[in-house]
Amino acid sequence: MPTNLIKTSEVDVLIIGAGPAGLMACNALAKAGISVRIVDQRPNKVAAGQADGIQPRTIEVLQSYGLADRLLTEGNQLHMAAFYNPSPDTGGIELTDRIPDVSETATPYPFELTLHQGAIEAIFLDSMRGMGVEVSRPVIPISMQLSEKEKHSHHIDVYPVRVTLQTVEPMFGQAKTEVVHTKYVIGADGAHSWVRKRFGIAMEGEQTEYIWGVVDMVPETNFPDIRNRTAIHSNNGSCMIIPREGDKVRLYIQLGDNAAVDSASGRVDKDKVGPHKLLDVAKKSFYPYTIETPESFDWWTIYTIGQRVASKYCVDERIFIAGDACHTHSPKAGQGMNASMNDTHNLAWKLIHVIRGWARPSLLKTYELERRTYAQDLISFDKEFAKLFSQKPKTQHNKEGVSHEDFLKAFQTFGGFTSGIGIHYGESSIVATLHQSYARGLSIGKRMPPQILIRAADARPFELQDLLPSDTRFKVLIFAGDTSQATQRAKVDNLAVDMSASHRFLKTYSPSGDIFAAFDILSISSATKSEVRYNELPKLFRSHWSKVFIDDQEARGRRGGDAYTNYGIYPTGVVVIVRPDGYVGMIAPFDKLQDVDQYFRGFTSGF
Amino acid sequence: MPTNLIKTSEVDVLIIGAGPAGLMACNALAKAGISVRIVDQRPNKVAAGQADGIQPRTIEVLQSYGLADRLLTEGNQLHMAAFYNPSPDTGGIELTDRIPDVSETATPYPFELTLHQGAIEAIFLDSMRGMGVEVSRPVIPISMQLSEKEKHSHHIDVYPVRVTLQTVEPMFGQAKTEVVHTKYVIGADGAHSWVRKRFGIAMEGEQTEYIWGVVDMVPETNFPDIRNRTAIHSNNGSCMIIPREGDKVRLYIQLGDNAAVDSASGRVDKDKVGPHKLLDVAKKSFYPYTIETPESFDWWTIYTIGQRVASKYCVDERIFIAGDACHTHSPKAGQGMNASMNDTHNLAWKLIHVIRGWARPSLLKTYELERRTYAQDLISFDKEFAKLFSQKPKTQHNKEGVSHEDFLKAFQTFGGFTSGIGIHYGESSIVATLHQSYARGLSIGKRMPPQILIRAADARPFELQDLLPSDTRFKVLIFAGDTSQATQRAKVDNLAVDMSASHRFLKTYSPSGDIFAAFDILSISSATKSEVRYNELPKLFRSHWSKVFIDDQEARGRRGGDAYTNYGIYPTGVVVIVRPDGYVGMIAPFDKLQDVDQYFRGFTSGF
Repeated sequence: MPTNLIKTSEVDVLIIGAGPAGLMACNALAKAGISVRIVDQRPNKVAAGQADGIQPRTIEVLQSYGLADRLLTEGNQLHMAAFYNPSPDTGGIELTDRIPDVSETATPYPFELTLHQGAIEAIFLDSMRGMGVEVSRPVIPISMQLSEKEKHSHHIDVYPVRVTLQTVEPMFGQAKTEVVHTKYVIGADGAHSWVRKRFGIAMEGEQTEYIWGVVDMVPETNFPDIRNRTAIHSNNGSCMIIPREGDKVRLYIQLGDNAAVDSASGRVDKDKVGPHKLLDVAKKSFYPYTIETPESFDWWTIYTIGQRVASKYCVDERIFIAGDACHTHSPKAGQGMNASMNDTHNLAWKLIHVIRGWARPSLLKTYELERRTYAQDLISFDKEFAKLFSQKPKTQHNKEGVSHEDFLKAFQTFGGFTSGIGIHYGESSIVATLHQSYARGLSIGKRMPPQILIRAADARPFELQDLLPSDTRFKVLIFAGDTSQATQRAKVDNLAVDMSASHRFLKTYSPSGDIFAAFDILSISSATKSEVRYNELPKLFRSHWSKVFIDDQEARGRRGGDAYTNYGIYPTGVVVIVRPDGYVGMIAPFDKLQDVDQYFRGFTSGF
Repeated sequence: MPTNLIKTSEVDVLIIGAGPAGLMACNALAKAGISVRIVDQRPNKVAAGQADGIQPRTIEVLQSYGLADRLLTEGNQLHMAAFYNPSPDTGGIELTDRIPDVSETATPYPFELTLHQGAIEAIFLDSMRGMGVEVSRPVIPISMQLSEKEKHSHHIDVYPVRVTLQTVEPMFGQAKTEVVHTKYVIGADGAHSWVRKRFGIAMEGEQTEYIWGVVDMVPETNFPDIRNRTAIHSNNGSCMIIPREGDKVRLYIQLGDNAAVDSASGRVDKDKVGPHKLLDVAKKSFYPYTIETPESFDWWTIYTIGQRVASKYCVDERIFIAGDACHTHSPKAGQGMNASMNDTHNLAWKLIHVIRGWARPSLLKTYELERRTYAQDLISFDKEFAKLFSQKPKTQHNKEGVSHEDFLKAFQTFGGFTSGIGIHYGESSIVATLHQSYARGLSIGKRMPPQILIRAADARPFELQDLLPSDTRFKVLIFAGDTSQATQRAKVDNLAVDMSASHRFLKTYSPSGDIFAAFDILSISSATKSEVRYNELPKLFRSHWSKVFIDDQEARGRRGGDAYTNYGIYPTGVVVIVRPDGYVGMIAPFDKLQDVDQYFRGFTSGF
C-alpha cells in the first residue's frame, strides 16, 4: 500500500494499553468529552488470573465515577486478617490473632475487595461503550515522534506527537498501518512498556531473591480462616490466603531458594514446577490443617519480586507513562492495580483542564511529582513487608526469626498503604498548606475524608464523598457555621458578596463565564435540623435546594452531626477547596479569599 | 367467528389488573416458576399522577424480591415531617415542630419514599420481562364461572375457573374473544373491580364529607419546608405537602364544603374547579409564605374520602380480590399502594405452596384472615387521622379545634400504620405464638426485624432481612448460642441430629426429598469473631460456608453484636421459623421440635 494512502487521524489523547490504568484514563477523559483513542495489543480482554485486591481508596475513586456498585456486587470482601504461627505444641501452626483487614476506620468501604482483572476492566469497558468509546485491538505502536518544533505550542490545531500504529489481524495475518496525530500520549502498556523503552526511561531498583508461587482454586479444607486474608508463617514456609469471588481462593506460596530456579541460568523456570507441586508446598505450611488437591486449578504462576520505579513519568509533559509501566512490586500487598488506576485518576483531570485551556501545561508536572513520590514510598514499604513475610518465623529454636508482633506492627503501620487512604501529596501548585490550622482534622494533600451530612431541605443523609464526584470540577465547600444565627448569616452573606467579585477565583477560573462549569459550590451549615432554613443562605451558596447541607444527625439513626468536630472546623466557618480528584487542595478562612485566588493563579491560564 | 374457533388456554393463575397489586402477585408467581397470566384493561401503563408514598415496610418487601435498588435510586425520600399552625402574631402560619417522618427506628429504610406509580409498575414490568412474562392489554373480562363440581378438586389437570376475556384493539375497534381455564383468579382490578362485582361482594363503610384537591407542580416558593412532608393547619384551611421526584411537589388541599360540589346533585364536580383555583386556596393557607402559580401543572384532581372494606376477600379459595378492589381510604396517609402490594405479597407464597401440592388449600383462608383484619384496622386509623386533618386548628378563638399535640399524638401512635412495620398478623395455622417467651424481642406474627449480623467465615456484615429473600422458602434460623464452648456445641450437634430425623418437619414438608427446596437454614452463633470457627457447626446448619453468622460487631465500624439482646434470645439458643413472606411464624426451644412439626402439619398436604 503506498504511503500516501495510509489512514491518518487526529485525537487529543492517545492511550496505549487497555489495562486498569489505561481504562481509568480513557473513561475519565471520555466522560469529560475529551477526544480520546485507546489501543491494546491483546486480541481480547483478559479472562482469568491476574487478579489484585482493590483497596478502600480505589473503591472510593470508582464510586466517584459512579462505577462502584458493580464492583461491590461482584467482588469478594475481605474484612478480617488472620495470622497463623508455629504452635509450640503440635509442630504445626495455630491461630495467633485476627484483626480487621483494614486498619483505617475512616472510609465508607472499610474492607479490601477481590475481583478478577477482567471483571474490573469490563466495568470500565461498559461505561466507555455507553459513551461510544471502544478499545481498538489488537493494535501495537511501531513508532512515535514528538515534534521539537511543536511541542511547546498549545494551539488547538497543533498535534505534536506522531504515532504509527499497526493493527494485527490474527485471523489472516495481515497488518494494517495507520498514523495518529495526537496532543498527548499515555503509555499504560504494562511492565514491558514499549512507550517507556521508546523514550529510554530507566527502571530503577532491584530484583529480590524471593520466589513465590500462586494458585487459584476452590479449596476443600478444614482450615477455619480460609475465607479471611490469612498470613501463615510456619517452619515449613510462608503462605498467604486471599479469598476470592464465589468459593475461589488464591494462595501465595513461598518457594525454597532452588525449587523453581534453573541451575544453569539462575532464573525462575516455570517448567520446573506446576500447581500440584506448589500446593504440596502449601500443604506443609497448613499442617495440622488439611487442604485437598482439587480436580483442577483455575490459574497458577510463579514469580520473583522486582521492586522498581521509572526514573521519570513523562517526556516534555506530552508523553506520560502510568501503571505497571512505571512501577513494579510484590503482588501480595495488593497494590498493583490500585496504584495503576490511581496514577491515571491523578493525571486525567489535569490533562482535561489543560486541554480545555483552563490550566497552564505546567500543571501536568504535578503528575510525576505526586505519583512518582508515592511509588517510591510504596516500594520502600513493599521491601520491608515482603522481607518480613519471606523470612522464617521466630520460634524457640529460631530467635532471629520474625515475631508476630513485628509482622503485626508492619501490617498496621503501613495500613495507609494497604488501604490507599494514607496517600498524602506534598506541597505544590495544587497543594497549598498555608491555612492548615483552620481545619486540623483535614490534611491538605490527602483525600477528603468521608462524613455523613444531612441535606438541609429534606434531612436526607448523604456521604460527603458522594457529593464530590469526579466530574472535573473543583468543589468549593462553604462551612458556613450556624446559619440559624443572624450574626453568622451576615458573615456568610458578606462572604458570598466577596466571592462573587469579578477578580475572585470563581470568575477568573471560569473562562466560559459559567462558574458552575469549573466549580461546584456546596454549603455546610452547623444549624440543627429543627432550626435550619435552607433558603436563608445566599443564592451563590444554594444554586439549587439540594446544595445546602447541615452537620446534624439524621432524623432516624445515629449517623452524622460530627463534621465540624471531625474536621476540626470552628463555628466561625471556613472555605475548603477540594481538587477534582477528591484531594484537599487548600483551606481558607472567610477573610482570606485572596489566598484562594493565588492558589488558582498558580496554574491558571489567565483569561 | 364461530364459537368453536375461539382460542382457549390453561393457566394456573390468572391475574386481572396490572396495577401494583396485580404486578406484585405476577412477579412473585413468575419468579417461583408458576404458570401465570396477567391482563389489564388500560391500553398503556399509567404515566403520571396517581403516585402514592412507599412505606419502609414496602421497601423491605421489594428488597426481598431484589427490586429495591431502583426504587431507592429513582424515588424521593421523606425523612422529616414538619407541622405549621396558626401564628398568634402574623395572622398566618408558623413552624410548630419538625419530627422524623417515620417514628419507627427499626427498619433499614427509616423514611418514606415518593415515586409515581408508573415508575413502580415499570420496576415490576422489567423484572417480569426478564422472566418472559408480559401484560396482555387492553383486555377485559366479560364472564367468569367457577365450576361447583370441580372447585374442590386439586388434581393437577383440573382448572375449575372459566374466564372469557375480550381483547380490545383500539386502533381498529375489533374485539377478539378468548377463554382461559384457570385454577385461581386474582382480581386486582381496582376500586370499581369487575371481579368483586361479578361475585356480588359488598363494600362496607361510608363516604365522608371531606373534599380535597390535589395538584402536582414544581413550586417557586420561600416556604422553608417545601421538601419535607408538611402538614399545614391554618385558619384558612389545611394543606399537606408531599415532595416528590426531582423538584416536583404534591399539594393536598382541603376544600370548603361547597367549593367543588354541584348544588343540584350534591356530588363533587371536577368542572367546578381547576388547578389554578386549587392553588389559590393553598396560597391562603401558606400565608405569610408565598407560592407562585407555575406555568403549568403536572397533574391535578379532586376527591372525597371513602373508607370501605370488602365484606370478603375470596370466593371458595379460588377467586381472590386484592388491592383497591377490597379497600379504599384517604390517600394522604400514603397507604393505598402499600396495602395493595402487601395484599398480594401475602397471597402469593400461599398460592405457590398450594399449587406445588405442599400445603393444603385451607392455607389460602389465612389470606382474608390476615389482610382483611389489617384493612379494617387501617380504615379505623384512617378515619381518625383524616378527621383530625380536616378539622380546624385550635387557636385562641377556636378552643374546640385540633391542637398540634392531638395531631402529633395521632401521627406517632399510628406510626406502625404509616410505616407498615406495625402490621401484626393474629394467631392462625401459620402464626403459632406458644413459645413467644423464648424471644421477647421478636413478635410472632410481625415481620422479622432488621439486624446486622457478621458472617462467621469472613466477618462480612449482612442485614438479616437480606438473608430472608422472598424465594418461597421457609427460613429456619438456628440461634445456636456460643458455639466456641464445647458444651453448647454438643447441644447444637444434638439439635442437628434431632432435626434431621425422618419424622421431623424438614423431611415431612420436603416432598421432593430436597429439604433446601422448601427451607433455607441459617445459623447464628453468639461466639465472637476472634473465637468462632465456622466449620465447627454441624453440616445441617452450614450447607455452605456462607450460611453461618455470628452476633458480633463488624471488624471496622460500630454495627452489629446486639441480635441476641434485641431479640431477647438466651445463650441457650432457640429456633425461629420465618415465613416465606418474612413474618415470624413460630419460635421453639431446642427441645420442642415436635411443636415445629405440629406447626407444619397444620397446613401441610402430608406426604
